[in-house]
Amino acid sequence: MQTIHPAAAAAIAALAPIFGDRLATSASVRAQHGGNEAHYPEAPPDAVVFPETTQEVAALLRICRAQGCPVTAVGAASALEGHHLPIHGGISLSLARMNRVLAVHPQDMDAVVQPGVTRRQLNEELRATGLMFPVDPGADASLGGMAATRASGTTAVRYGTMRDNVLALEVVLADGRVIRTGSRARKSSAGFDLTRLMIGSEGTLGIITELTLKLHGQPEAVSAATCRFGSVAEAVDCVIATIQSGLAVARIELLDEMMLRGFNAYQGSDLPEEPHLFVEFHGSPASVAEQAEAFGDLAGEYGASAMRWTDRAEECRELWHMRHQAHYATGALDPGKRTLATDVCVPISRLAEAVTHAQSLARELNLTSTIVGHVGDGNFHCGLRVDPNDAEEMARLHRFTDALAENALLLGGTVTGEHGVGLGKIAYMTAEHGEAVAVMRSLKSALDPKGILNPGKMLPPQDEG
Amino acid sequence: MQTIHPAAAAAIAALAPIFGDRLATSASVRAQHGGNEAHYPEAPPDAVVFPETTQEVAALLRICRAQGCPVTAVGAASALEGHHLPIHGGISLSLARMNRVLAVHPQDMDAVVQPGVTRRQLNEELRATGLMFPVDPGADASLGGMAATRASGTTAVRYGTMRDNVLALEVVLADGRVIRTGSRARKSSAGFDLTRLMIGSEGTLGIITELTLKLHGQPEAVSAATCRFGSVAEAVDCVIATIQSGLAVARIELLDEMMLRGFNAYQGSDLPEEPHLFVEFHGSPASVAEQAEAFGDLAGEYGASAMRWTDRAEECRELWHMRHQAHYATGALDPGKRTLATDVCVPISRLAEAVTHAQSLARELNLTSTIVGHVGDGNFHCGLRVDPNDAEEMARLHRFTDALAENALLLGGTVTGEHGVGLGKIAYMTAEHGEAVAVMRSLKSALDPKGILNPGKMLPPQDEG
Repeated sequence: MQTIHPAAAAAIAALAPIFGDRLATSASVRAQHGGNEAHYPEAPPDAVVFPETTQEVAALLRICRAQGCPVTAVGAASALEGHHLPIHGGISLSLARMNRVLAVHPQDMDAVVQPGVTRRQLNEELRATGLMFPVDPGADASLGGMAATRASGTTAVRYGTMRDNVLALEVVLADGRVIRTGSRARKSSAGFDLTRLMIGSEGTLGIITELTLKLHGQPEAVSAATCRFGSVAEAVDCVIATIQSGLAVARIELLDEMMLRGFNAYQGSDLPEEPHLFVEFHGSPASVAEQAEAFGDLAGEYGASAMRWTDRAEECRELWHMRHQAHYATGALDPGKRTLATDVCVPISRLAEAVTHAQSLARELNLTSTIVGHVGDGNFHCGLRVDPNDAEEMARLHRFTDALAENALLLGGTVTGEHGVGLGKIAYMTAEHGEAVAVMRSLKSALDPKGILNPGKMLPPQDEG
Repeated sequence: MQTIHPAAAAAIAALAPIFGDRLATSASVRAQHGGNEAHYPEAPPDAVVFPETTQEVAALLRICRAQGCPVTAVGAASALEGHHLPIHGGISLSLARMNRVLAVHPQDMDAVVQPGVTRRQLNEELRATGLMFPVDPGADASLGGMAATRASGTTAVRYGTMRDNVLALEVVLADGRVIRTGSRARKSSAGFDLTRLMIGSEGTLGIITELTLKLHGQPEAVSAATCRFGSVAEAVDCVIATIQSGLAVARIELLDEMMLRGFNAYQGSDLPEEPHLFVEFHGSPASVAEQAEAFGDLAGEYGASAMRWTDRAEECRELWHMRHQAHYATGALDPGKRTLATDVCVPISRLAEAVTHAQSLARELNLTSTIVGHVGDGNFHCGLRVDPNDAEEMARLHRFTDALAENALLLGGTVTGEHGVGLGKIAYMTAEHGEAVAVMRSLKSALDPKGILNPGKMLPPQDEG
C-alpha cells in the first residue's frame, strides 16, 4: 500500500501486531473516515485504528510519536468544519469501540463514560434514573467529540455548553502519558483548569479517553411553542426581552424565512415562510405554566402571531426533531449542491444586525442561505448551498463567509459559537485572537512538540499568524 | 535599602522613574502588603507598585523580566491561602488603583471592569440597572483576585463560580505582551480556552488587567430560611434530596455545632448550638413560594425543626451578613490564637462522611474547629484556631489538614473547592493530580519561562512533584 504521509508505513507496521484486525487499511474504511457532513474535500487516512482501552490509545500515541506520524481522532464524524479529516494522512484514531457508559452516580448526578458513547445512547441509559445529559447539538454526536469541539446546541441557553457540563477528563497526551484533569467534585480551585484547556482543543492537545459528565434532572413538565413574526428584528427583540426578563427558557430558536422554505421543501409541508421562534420551558407544572404565560405576553408585544403551544412530550419531541433536521432541510433547496454550514456568535444586542446583515449578504451574492439560531446565546448558523466544482460560486461563498466572520468580530463576537475551528475557521483565528494565537501556539508546542496531533487544524501556520 | 531578592534593587531602580510616588519602599507599605487574613508568616515585598493602566503593568513586567525579579499580584488581599504573599521578595503589583467599572451593557447583561474593582463596588454601581454580579465569597474581594483564584462562595450552587461568570479577560503575560482571551459573545468554540486557563492560575501565568463579566437579573423575590437538624448527617441528607429534587436553591449552607458556638461567642447571641442549614430561593414570587414550600416539606422529612422564613430583603441581608462573619466568629473561640481556614470539596454523596470525619479528627487532635459549607456543591470549610508559635499545636494542625485533604481525595474530591492552592495546598498537588502536575509545569514554563510570576506558589518544586 502506498501511504500519503511519509511516516505512516513505519507506524502502521509497528501498530499492526498490537491492533490486529482493529487496524484497517482497506480503501473502503479509509474512504469512510475521509468523508464529512460538510463541503470539505475527501481526505482519507493511511489507516484507521480502533482502540478499546486507554492503554491502547497510549501505545498508539507512543508509536506514532516515535515515527512522527499524524494522529487524528474521530468520534461520530458529525463535525461540520472538517475537524476529523486527516488532511496530512497518517492514522485516524476511531473512538467508536470505546463506547461504554462506565458508571452513573444518581446521588451525585454525574456519569462516567467512554468518548465513543453518543449523547442519545447516554440518554437512553439514563432514562430510568430520572436524569439526563442535556447538551443537544442536534446530531447524535459522540460525547468525546462534543467535548473536543466544545459543542453546545439548542439547550445551552439553559444548561450551558460542554464547557459547563464536563467535570473531568482522562486524556492521553501526544507522548502517551495518561492524565486525569479533575475529580467528581462539583468545583475545584486546585491548579490550572486542564479540563477546560482540553475542551475545545479539537484533538490537537491530547486524546480524550474518558469523561465525567454533569447530569441534570429530567424536567417534571415541558411546554413548547412556535410563533411567527413579521421580521427577524422583531423576533430577536422578543428574544432579548425574554432573556432580560429572567425567564429560564430551556430552548429559544430562530428560523428565518428561507429556513421555513427549506422545511416545506424537505417535508412537503405548507408552513408560512416567515421568521419563527421555537421555544421550550422546563420546570414544575406551575412554573412552566407561569413562564409560558409570561412568554406569550412578551411575544404578543413584539407582534408574534399564530402561537401554538404544546405540553405533550411526543409533540415537543417532534418539534425539536424537525428543528434538528435543519441541515437536511437546507439540503432540499437547490438540489444537487452541497451544504456549507457556518456559525458565528455575537452579543445578543447586536444579533438582529448580524442576522439581517447575513441575509442581505446572501441576497447580494446570489447565494441560497438558511438561518437558524440558538438566539438566546446570540449564536446563529447559515446553511449555504454550493457546488464545490463551481469555482465562481465558491468564490462568492468565500466572500460570504469572510464577511460574516468579519462582521461578527466587528460586533464584538466570535467567528464560531459552537461548530469550532476545524478547517473552516483557521483563516480568522488571527483576526479574532491577535497575539493570543501565539500563546495558543506555545501551549501546543509545550504539549505536542512534534505536532503529531491533528496537524493542520486550529492554529494558522506560523508565517500567516 | 537592603532588598530581599537579589534582582529587586535593579528592578526598583528601573521602575522608579516610571512610577514615581506610585512605587513604595517604605517599611509600612511593605509590611501592609506582606500580611494576610490567615496564619501565614509575614512576607513583605521589596517594593509595592501601583500601576493605573495596562500599559504600565506591561512596562513593569518587561523590566522585572529583564532583571529576573519576582512579581506577585495583589488585589484586596482577602485570600486565605497566602496567594498574594511575595515569599521570595521582589515586587508586589497592587491592582488597587485599577478600580474602575469601564462599561455596563444592560441588554447583553455584561460588564467590563478593571481588576481592582471589588464585588460590592460593582454591585453598588449596578443597583439601578436591575442587574447583579452574583458570585459571593463573603469577603469584599477584588474581581481580579476572584478570577485569579477561581473564587465561588454561597451562591455558586445557583449561579456558578468565577469559572462560569467571566466571559473574557485582558491579560499581561510575563514578557509584557498583552492578550485578550475572548469576546462579549456568550459562548465560543474558536480556539483554546485561555480565559479558563487564566482563571484559577493565581497570578502564575499572567496578570489580569481587565475582566468582562456575566451579569444576572436581580431576583424579583427572595426568600430565606434557617432550620436546625439533629445531626450533620441529617442536614446533609436533606441537602442531597433538595438538589436531586431539582429545586433551584440560590444558597444552601451548613453550619455545624461549633460554628454556632462561635456565633454565640462573637455576637453575644443565644442560638442553639446544633447543626443548621441556611437556605435562600430566588425567582418570581410564585416560584419562590412554591420552592420554599417544597423545601419546607423536604426538611421536615429529615427532622428539621425551628424553621424560620423571611422574605424581607433586610432580614435576608442580615442573615447572610451573619453567615459571612463565620471567619471572625471562629476567631471568637480560643481568643489569642489565629484562624487557619481550609476547604475541601467532595461529591455530595460523600459529604456527610467527609464532614463527620473532619469533626472527629478535630476532636481526636484536640483542635477547635468550626465547619461551614457550601453544601449544595459538596464544599466545606474548617476554621481552626491555632497558635503559630506553639510548635506542638502546629504539628497537630498539620496532621489535621493532611488527613482532611487525604480523605477528600479518597472520597473522590479535591483538596480545595474554592480557596485555591496558594501556599497551603501545594503539598497535596501531586497527590491530587499525579502526572497532570507535570503538564501544569509545562504550561507554566511555556508562558513564564523565567518563573517571575508569583514564584513558590501553585506548583510543587520539581524534585517533590
